[in-house]
Amino acid sequence: MRTVFSTITIVGVGLIGGSIGLAAKKRGVAGRIVGVGRDPQKLHDARRLGAIDEAATDLAEAVREADLVVFCTPVDRIVEQVTAAAQHAKKDAAFTDAGSTKAMIVRQVDAAALGGVRFVGSHPLAGSEKKGAEHADADLFVERTVVLTPTEQTSALGVVGGFWQSLGARLRVMSPEEHDEALAFTSHLPHLLASALAGMLPDDWHDLAASGFRDTTRVAAGDPEVWSPIFRHNRRAVLESLDQLIVRLVRFRQALVADEVSEIDQFLAQGKKVRDALGS
Amino acid sequence: MRTVFSTITIVGVGLIGGSIGLAAKKRGVAGRIVGVGRDPQKLHDARRLGAIDEAATDLAEAVREADLVVFCTPVDRIVEQVTAAAQHAKKDAAFTDAGSTKAMIVRQVDAAALGGVRFVGSHPLAGSEKKGAEHADADLFVERTVVLTPTEQTSALGVVGGFWQSLGARLRVMSPEEHDEALAFTSHLPHLLASALAGMLPDDWHDLAASGFRDTTRVAAGDPEVWSPIFRHNRRAVLESLDQLIVRLVRFRQALVADEVSEIDQFLAQGKKVRDALGS
Repeated sequence: MRTVFSTITIVGVGLIGGSIGLAAKKRGVAGRIVGVGRDPQKLHDARRLGAIDEAATDLAEAVREADLVVFCTPVDRIVEQVTAAAQHAKKDAAFTDAGSTKAMIVRQVDAAALGGVRFVGSHPLAGSEKKGAEHADADLFVERTVVLTPTEQTSALGVVGGFWQSLGARLRVMSPEEHDEALAFTSHLPHLLASALAGMLPDDWHDLAASGFRDTTRVAAGDPEVWSPIFRHNRRAVLESLDQLIVRLVRFRQALVADEVSEIDQFLAQGKKVRDALGS
Repeated sequence: MRTVFSTITIVGVGLIGGSIGLAAKKRGVAGRIVGVGRDPQKLHDARRLGAIDEAATDLAEAVREADLVVFCTPVDRIVEQVTAAAQHAKKDAAFTDAGSTKAMIVRQVDAAALGGVRFVGSHPLAGSEKKGAEHADADLFVERTVVLTPTEQTSALGVVGGFWQSLGARLRVMSPEEHDEALAFTSHLPHLLASALAGMLPDDWHDLAASGFRDTTRVAAGDPEVWSPIFRHNRRAVLESLDQLIVRLVRFRQALVADEVSEIDQFLAQGKKVRDALGS
């Protein structure tokens, strides 16, 4: 069983939005896909690549006939767009987003009047440091986790969860706050460390930065316009993760200063154990 | 012009030693390659894979006819092996190593009596978190940097540098101390951060660790038996790098607490600028 949506509107046609379009078309879950954005060139590219069928710069117009609207814009723009779009959407339309933070978005949307529109927050754990629909991939969500963050107000869990599943994703349901706590550690903190490391590399050492440095810092190439609002949205959880990491680094520092070999070995063995369990 | 060595002996036939063997054979720079190790099974594998022609478990025996000996064992074993092997080698043999730290190894070797044997420290910036000759690659060193760390005593720079170049590598010459300072930052600190992050991941969040977390922590899968001695050898420089990183993290922390947007943006932009310059 699979729901086919007559019209899906995707707000923001970058890597994630473009991939949703390609994935939905490939699997026949959308009759028509409308892409919305501010930049006509990006919309043109998305259409040329087959990620959307129609392009629009006017949000109100673009959501009018949509059965499902997916907001794929930076996290600091989503609430405003969701509440604006709800005024123009069909009364039973389902809305979701693809933002990397959830608590601030979901709680603010819950507090807003959306008419009959149903909203549930989503976060597809897919993508990369690359940007733009030209890197979109119809199989980006296959066997990737999508976190759904329903609240007591949510009635769109079934339809939105089914949509992501039809694109090949695995679902995980968490509260918005639990999502933010976990992602602070699994995504935002790694980005922070990667940015710190990369930003400190002297020019003269570039040829000494081999595959280890490149892997460890890869995510630092992500767009600051996307990442700055993520850190600010998820401030409290990011600070908690960072503080826990600093405690751990200081403990390693003490072990190294005191040449406590078994402490050092254990630290490295624990990291290896978990990393091996994750797989490539 | 290319020097062909009648016999090259490789001490330690893991990923690096095995790759040196394959690379040298592919490019015809060795008449015969002898592999030395403690584990007969690993030697057998290296021979089966074509990385070595002969296997030996006795170091003295294995170096007797060697023109070039390359030590590819963990950094805490190299000095002892170099000094032991020098007693049995030809008087004009060239020795080098592939250790990830240089100051302690090179200064201790310089202080030892090697007879007529010539030594220069090397560090090929290649390899991965993988282990064993089964992951060896004849092209591992192509267009990779090999750091050479000559001292006032070194007379093997030409022959060893030429050897690495014949395997396709680019050379960089630095003092052992400068090497260790740079690699503390470009390799040992990333490993430390990766291990800290990976080691903190709760079981329940494994499916929330997507490609960003996996990239950032990839090197944590490295062998603790290799990495623990690296940290201990390079203690001072690792501590300095770590302290600089913590200062930078704390500065970011303050900016996030105070919601200093331009500070946050600048931090991320600086990381992106450097990471983009490094390439994939």
